Amino acid sequence: MCGSPSVFLRFCAMSNGRHLSEGDKLPDLPKDGKLRLYSMRFCPYAQRIHLILDAKDIPYHSIYINLGNKPGWFLDKSPTGKVPALELTNESGNPTIIESLIIAEYLDEKYPKRPMYPKDPLLKARDRILIDQFNSVISSMYKIFLQDLEEVPGAITNVVKGLDLYEKELRHRGTEFFNGKQPGMLDYMIWPWCERCDMLPYLVGDKYQLDDKRFEKLIKWRTLMKEDSAVQRSIISGTDHANYIKSRRAGRPDYDMLVIEGKRQRVA
Amino acid sequence: MCGSPSVFLRFCAMSNGRHLSEGDKLPDLPKDGKLRLYSMRFCPYAQRIHLILDAKDIPYHSIYINLGNKPGWFLDKSPTGKVPALELTNESGNPTIIESLIIAEYLDEKYPKRPMYPKDPLLKARDRILIDQFNSVISSMYKIFLQDLEEVPGAITNVVKGLDLYEKELRHRGTEFFNGKQPGMLDYMIWPWCERCDMLPYLVGDKYQLDDKRFEKLIKWRTLMKEDSAVQRSIISGTDHANYIKSRRAGRPDYDMLVIEGKRQRVA
Repeated sequence: MCGSPSVFLRFCAMSNGRHLSEGDKLPDLPKDGKLRLYSMRFCPYAQRIHLILDAKDIPYHSIYINLGNKPGWFLDKSPTGKVPALELTNESGNPTIIESLIIAEYLDEKYPKRPMYPKDPLLKARDRILIDQFNSVISSMYKIFLQDLEEVPGAITNVVKGLDLYEKELRHRGTEFFNGKQPGMLDYMIWPWCERCDMLPYLVGDKYQLDDKRFEKLIKWRTLMKEDSAVQRSIISGTDHANYIKSRRAGRPDYDMLVIEGKRQRVA
Repeated sequence: MCGSPSVFLRFCAMSNGRHLSEGDKLPDLPKDGKLRLYSMRFCPYAQRIHLILDAKDIPYHSIYINLGNKPGWFLDKSPTGKVPALELTNESGNPTIIESLIIAEYLDEKYPKRPMYPKDPLLKARDRILIDQFNSVISSMYKIFLQDLEEVPGAITNVVKGLDLYEKELRHRGTEFFNGKQPGMLDYMIWPWCERCDMLPYLVGDKYQLDDKRFEKLIKWRTLMKEDSAVQRSIISGTDHANYIKSRRAGRPDYDMLVIEGKRQRVA
């Protein structure tokens, strides 16, 4: 997945930001008008915003937060203490907005270049319903990632059943991406969890493979998504995702496992 | 609340639709191009859509569903089996859309008369964050409405803490409604649960009153909302809400308690 040198370089460039903890100062960022994304390297919701910003070529700084030991100033940026949070240095008073889908839709409205939704309100509503319904797939995936292994077979059945809807939709649309010839909001909003499916063989063995025929379109879509330039900027390999999840299961999430030794907090 | 004769008449006109059950046929509605809202008289999420349709003066038929014993054809309209579902007779193939906030935003985009959101993407995002955060108030309210009475004091504390954010916001905005001089998306999306606060004295006694000073703006807002013409078309009194909740707690939700004897399914 990160095989080609160019992809590997971009992957490394993205991943060398240390996660800031209690006691760390707010980075002294240049007043260059760039948006500031408070993120965590392995958070799929934060990844949604990296994807939209990268797809739309919006310049931004990434500030990574140690969610287990947050810096005091982070609550001023994100009152709920969650990532993603986007600080809008282009708006009066530098406000911060939260909630991944709300941030993504704000960006789509504020930066209309390369629209992420169809213009037609009905087609847009359909995409939004599919984004919403993906939440049940996400819930089942978390059972696999984080909970007791005994629950895995049932949860995998639920994930597979949930994905049927998206396979059916891709077949119905007859396009490579849900959004047509290139990814749009629905593609990017569900991608982070589809990327994380690559860690399943490392967590539960390779007996749980998606059925090639049942999910023919979705498997093709996954391959194409991995070639998308925005996806390539934030993608993490299945082994790395699995190692992070193992550290989280052990109660010591290793947020900085992709940080390159000796490098300081990166301003992307 | 439903004291004046005019309000009372409108209230009755809204409430005489019997909830259709298994075995009931799909009503033979005229092909008049009106939208068709599948609803349940006491469902706050369905009420959100009545409010938006009524505020925007969009003509529609209401079809009420017995959620405990649904007609077979209802799953064709709403695959998840939930209300609200809106059948779009103005779109090719009469598709149905679901999820209250998605339906409300579809209506706002499709029928731009009286926009429900501010035009500015940041102000819109702020309203959407407040709609999203209200979900935690809703969760606590359901504990009061439906769960063990022993949990009530803690849940009421959580509701009151949750409402602080909305009082603060109204003070900050300095307007009568969250949307300014008339209600908008945020006002209507949170209203159904604020309306249901009137049932608390009938469920848990009158010792849990909102503090007049702490919630000065919000209490004024509630009074003004009750005077809004869209709200008046769907409002239900505190005693009626309480009686419905009591029937639901007893395991026999009385969906038809507001249906006037002898009247048949109403096509609104």
